[in-house]
Amino acid sequence: MSYRVIKGTDFSDLLDGNVAFVLCIGNTMTAEIPGITVAGESPELIKFTPPADAELLCYGYCKSIPFPPATPDGKPTPALITYTALRLTHVPLFVVDSGLIEKPKMPYWTVNAPVGRNIAEESAMDLEDVKRTFNYGKILGKELSKEFDVLVIGESIPAGTTTAGAVLKAMGLDPKVSSSMPENPVDIKRRVMDMAVSRVESDDPLEIMAEVGDPVLVTVSGISTGFAKHVILAGGTQMAAVSQIVNALNPDAEVHIVTTKYVAEDKTSDIAEISATDVIASDPGLEKSTKAGLRAYGQGFVKEGVGAGGASLLVYRKGYTTEQFLREVERDYEVVVEQVRS
Amino acid sequence: MSYRVIKGTDFSDLLDGNVAFVLCIGNTMTAEIPGITVAGESPELIKFTPPADAELLCYGYCKSIPFPPATPDGKPTPALITYTALRLTHVPLFVVDSGLIEKPKMPYWTVNAPVGRNIAEESAMDLEDVKRTFNYGKILGKELSKEFDVLVIGESIPAGTTTAGAVLKAMGLDPKVSSSMPENPVDIKRRVMDMAVSRVESDDPLEIMAEVGDPVLVTVSGISTGFAKHVILAGGTQMAAVSQIVNALNPDAEVHIVTTKYVAEDKTSDIAEISATDVIASDPGLEKSTKAGLRAYGQGFVKEGVGAGGASLLVYRKGYTTEQFLREVERDYEVVVEQVRS
Repeated sequence: MSYRVIKGTDFSDLLDGNVAFVLCIGNTMTAEIPGITVAGESPELIKFTPPADAELLCYGYCKSIPFPPATPDGKPTPALITYTALRLTHVPLFVVDSGLIEKPKMPYWTVNAPVGRNIAEESAMDLEDVKRTFNYGKILGKELSKEFDVLVIGESIPAGTTTAGAVLKAMGLDPKVSSSMPENPVDIKRRVMDMAVSRVESDDPLEIMAEVGDPVLVTVSGISTGFAKHVILAGGTQMAAVSQIVNALNPDAEVHIVTTKYVAEDKTSDIAEISATDVIASDPGLEKSTKAGLRAYGQGFVKEGVGAGGASLLVYRKGYTTEQFLREVERDYEVVVEQVRS
Repeated sequence: MSYRVIKGTDFSDLLDGNVAFVLCIGNTMTAEIPGITVAGESPELIKFTPPADAELLCYGYCKSIPFPPATPDGKPTPALITYTALRLTHVPLFVVDSGLIEKPKMPYWTVNAPVGRNIAEESAMDLEDVKRTFNYGKILGKELSKEFDVLVIGESIPAGTTTAGAVLKAMGLDPKVSSSMPENPVDIKRRVMDMAVSRVESDDPLEIMAEVGDPVLVTVSGISTGFAKHVILAGGTQMAAVSQIVNALNPDAEVHIVTTKYVAEDKTSDIAEISATDVIASDPGLEKSTKAGLRAYGQGFVKEGVGAGGASLLVYRKGYTTEQFLREVERDYEVVVEQVRS
């Protein structure tokens, strides 16, 4: 099975309509807390991961850094999987600057999002900025719904699971919090989340995001709220948080979650419980790869990001098997990672 | 007749496909030459005209300035006509920052375009910036062609007819140069164009734009070159210049021009002669309006801009008559201009 319904009903046939892939990329200074994220080979490179992910989808290589983003021990970005999926499906890519430190070297949307501050120390964003960005996101979603039937929305924001976990916690949920690492640094994350959530004095979703969230959550929530048709939130913990925000604002909104099998099977996470919507887990089949960098996904590394789960489901809906898709991902891996590194 | 073929064949049926309306907005410091443009009520307001035009299309009112853009004697922006057309046709609006001094208060695309310098004094843009923006425009066009059949591209850039005229002249054409004023300030414009064109030492379209053009010309040319299907250039002199640039770069490109009847009938201009492509003139019927601000269009004021001609053709293809469209424009005029001013 290339995908499996984890919660609710099977909504995968939605992906047969007119689809656009929207990638929301941003930064939170929470990522500067040592050990909280591995979304970058070194602390200096972390801020380049979101623009480099977007560039990889656009060009098949990165412009802001010489190599594709990777963890400190060399596990490659999930943007690789999404790149192959978009290449195979010809779905248009719309990148949204959702609060970036470094801009991608390509065309992109802006919704005037602020960079998120470190939630361990202070409010993530000014409420005024959150409201404006949310509204710009809504307008963008509304314009796109004039032509597209479905938006698949992915994200790239280092330390985004921590801010999303804090939002979920502030909304009364008990997230286990997933991570890009098999040894999920639960202690650091939980301490940061607790410190942040202790400041929350409101149950308004926008105020909660302003205190403990990040600009990508705001942007994805805004776009999802404005898009009048179906939205596929492609991700794990972060998209679970978005599903709760959107559901709190508009219980009738048509949002759904697709994540990877690696998130769904993660014992340190519980995507079904923390999501307000139907959830599908898509299987990129990477554990059978001949490439160690891809096999690592099946061993609990990286697991999800850049909409990889949702993007792979797009491919399966076009009739590809898991095996066929894996061959295509490996083909791209040889060019995008191996040739560049050699 | 709501529209008329001025040159070549009737391509209006293209507008029955999946259409997006793209508005490219930017600035050239050439607009600071006294008397060269009336695209703003005062010299201080000129730089706000492009973002305010975009906001009007998005919201039905402006955010960057308290009133809709107008000429010093109060003739309203053609964005009014385009606003009504997009409202009636539900075509999605994509605004592109094509070198702005002031950003619009709404979501928009960026292609990292520079603000254009005053072509009377120096090179308009660095060639490196022109090449980058052109390429980003191409990428944007290519992504949009995955879903849309036709792009209608409009522009807003004060003094844009002067920079476009200089580009046409540098490419060997003899533009008469249209203007937003019935007493077209031909002397100033021609002097500026001559000064600028005397510096041109290349016949490469990108190098010509870098010397005497503006960032909107670069962006529209880039998008038109990247969009693999039909492009409707919605405008007068500026779009004629784009048609020449695109034609020089790729003679097989599928570009077409729609302008207003007011440009087509302007004795100080010759849109058919200076265009490299088929041309249609659309008639917004404004000379029959009960509103003096709209009737002025029929007397040679403003005439075109913000893609008004192309946008009105979209409405006619949906089956509206000129009279029906005029009633809708007047209805919006009462809200957008009269109520705000009173």
